[in-house]
Amino acid sequence: MERVKKIQHWLKENDISWAFITSTPNVFYFSHFYSDPHERLLAIAIFQEEEPILICPQMEVAQAKQAGWAYEIIGYDDTENPWDLLQKRIAKREIVTERIAIEKEHMTIARLEQLQARFSNASFIDITEKVRSIRMIKDENELRILRQAAELADLGVEIGVRSLAEGKTELEIVAAIEYELKKKGVRSMSFATMVLTGENSAAPHGVPGTKTIERGHFVLFDLGVVLDGYCSDITRTVAFGSATAQQKEIYETVLKAQLAAIHACQIGQKIGQIDKAARTIIEQAGYGAYFPHRVGHGLGIDVHEYPSMNETNEMTLEKGMVFTIEPGIYVPSIGGVRIEDDIYMTENGPMILTNYPKELQII
Amino acid sequence: MERVKKIQHWLKENDISWAFITSTPNVFYFSHFYSDPHERLLAIAIFQEEEPILICPQMEVAQAKQAGWAYEIIGYDDTENPWDLLQKRIAKREIVTERIAIEKEHMTIARLEQLQARFSNASFIDITEKVRSIRMIKDENELRILRQAAELADLGVEIGVRSLAEGKTELEIVAAIEYELKKKGVRSMSFATMVLTGENSAAPHGVPGTKTIERGHFVLFDLGVVLDGYCSDITRTVAFGSATAQQKEIYETVLKAQLAAIHACQIGQKIGQIDKAARTIIEQAGYGAYFPHRVGHGLGIDVHEYPSMNETNEMTLEKGMVFTIEPGIYVPSIGGVRIEDDIYMTENGPMILTNYPKELQII
Repeated sequence: MERVKKIQHWLKENDISWAFITSTPNVFYFSHFYSDPHERLLAIAIFQEEEPILICPQMEVAQAKQAGWAYEIIGYDDTENPWDLLQKRIAKREIVTERIAIEKEHMTIARLEQLQARFSNASFIDITEKVRSIRMIKDENELRILRQAAELADLGVEIGVRSLAEGKTELEIVAAIEYELKKKGVRSMSFATMVLTGENSAAPHGVPGTKTIERGHFVLFDLGVVLDGYCSDITRTVAFGSATAQQKEIYETVLKAQLAAIHACQIGQKIGQIDKAARTIIEQAGYGAYFPHRVGHGLGIDVHEYPSMNETNEMTLEKGMVFTIEPGIYVPSIGGVRIEDDIYMTENGPMILTNYPKELQII
Repeated sequence: MERVKKIQHWLKENDISWAFITSTPNVFYFSHFYSDPHERLLAIAIFQEEEPILICPQMEVAQAKQAGWAYEIIGYDDTENPWDLLQKRIAKREIVTERIAIEKEHMTIARLEQLQARFSNASFIDITEKVRSIRMIKDENELRILRQAAELADLGVEIGVRSLAEGKTELEIVAAIEYELKKKGVRSMSFATMVLTGENSAAPHGVPGTKTIERGHFVLFDLGVVLDGYCSDITRTVAFGSATAQQKEIYETVLKAQLAAIHACQIGQKIGQIDKAARTIIEQAGYGAYFPHRVGHGLGIDVHEYPSMNETNEMTLEKGMVFTIEPGIYVPSIGGVRIEDDIYMTENGPMILTNYPKELQII
């Protein structure tokens, strides 16, 4: 209810009649109820004073209660119109609807038209940013889950490294990692597991294929798991068989940049400075043109959420933020190196959630 | 260009200035270019007469051309506003914008506001249904891919059945299936692979977990692969160790219902009648209350698309439609049986794309 109260406070402050939360991650955040309703309506209506209402298919009502939703629920079956039911329930509560907060970056136009047809005098305010800001600060329970998810990500890299053998394909290594993690009870990965080798590793968003592991090549692993609704995300790069002096130089530069960025993570520090800490080291080593992305991203229910760890972000670090630090250098003819950890900000500095070793391994 | 021409024809017929296609599957359908742009804009603008324009991140322009897009492209980098670029390009072509067709069931309100800010006198028409209808009829090339995807789904079931052993968990079997398919080069599954056993199989949308394979239980497999952008979807149910008389009766009823529904698939037949063919048999056997879902769904780029194979659909079957036929009976204390095939409608009747055997197997 703590989370709902934050929205209620915001509604009062901004003179908004009620908020209508419709994206699956946000419904989960406010209800602890995770459901993928496909085209069906799944939503939470949050009011200034009255208790919130969850709207979900009738067949999911029991699961929602079981997940801990202790407030009103509108369950509907396929012959009922949930929009009509919601309208009636709000009318019954005698709530005057003048301004409705909606997720403009998520809600479709078709759904807005459903609301407009029933609340014809209402104006619509975007709540997207507000919820992003609330979700950005993690509580103790979220930290506990994120730590466990990070441990499983460590394990994923460990399995991947152990599975390496000359001639095996990238996809075979992906399959081995996901197989072992599934056996441990992992139900889904945060995103499509990446195992990239040789020149393939030089594409920051490469796709694993039938390229085989060869001596003298980098192998880059980027993966994460979803645990109780929260994502982890780790990247490690190893050299297979041998590494040239330049490969070692690239690796050490990325590692130095990553450690510097983590070291720069202090409460009150501007986020842009974290990116800069890594970027400066890579630029000074002469690889500035080969680091084409931001230093990291927020992490939580979504694998990319707030804060965005980019050069121009003026926001300052706060206790409870969780984000990745993942500089990389990608040289087309040589391959790519990226090292990524998940970080939780404590009052005393960064706590690193991912713990797989980072010194250069030649496998 | 055949596909774009259908939209151009529709634009003229309905006096619409241009269409703005923004959902990833639809962009793929019209361009053969598959890309997941996350929050970035990926879109196709289709005009009545002039050639279409693809809007995509600059770093993807080369891939789009490689995928076969031979028309104009607006590539933008992160410092540019793609909406402004689009507006300028349309102004340069001296196109008068009065009515814009958009995907109202996909496009977000935030994006609509971007269009409204730049085409302030425009009204907006929904193109969602039109594109669904066009995509519903598959061409020869799509059929070729869907057949291959169905073959890999057959293989997935074969691997699953082969992996069954007393005491193994559902998730272990899932892991084995996906591991072997990945080794064959499959990059992603159509949806989270389902292996459900015992009472778990009685939930039409159950989630695999740590429940173990036990003698006398049904094991239900529901899976599919994505191949070149197209999905397959198969369900088979086997009995492990033994089957009671009632389990056999349930199985035979589902199989009879499934064969009857396939048999009812003839060009010009109302879709509701296909559902009814299966439902009547299940009702007559006394299991009507245990078949709580429609008989199937369309299949293509999306794993659920048009036509919806439900009881009230008055649409008639046409050559080129691809859909599933998947009746099921789910009895809480006994378990569930579902049998699902992918069907392509030819002039001469249904062509079954999935070919894994359907007679009851006791493993």
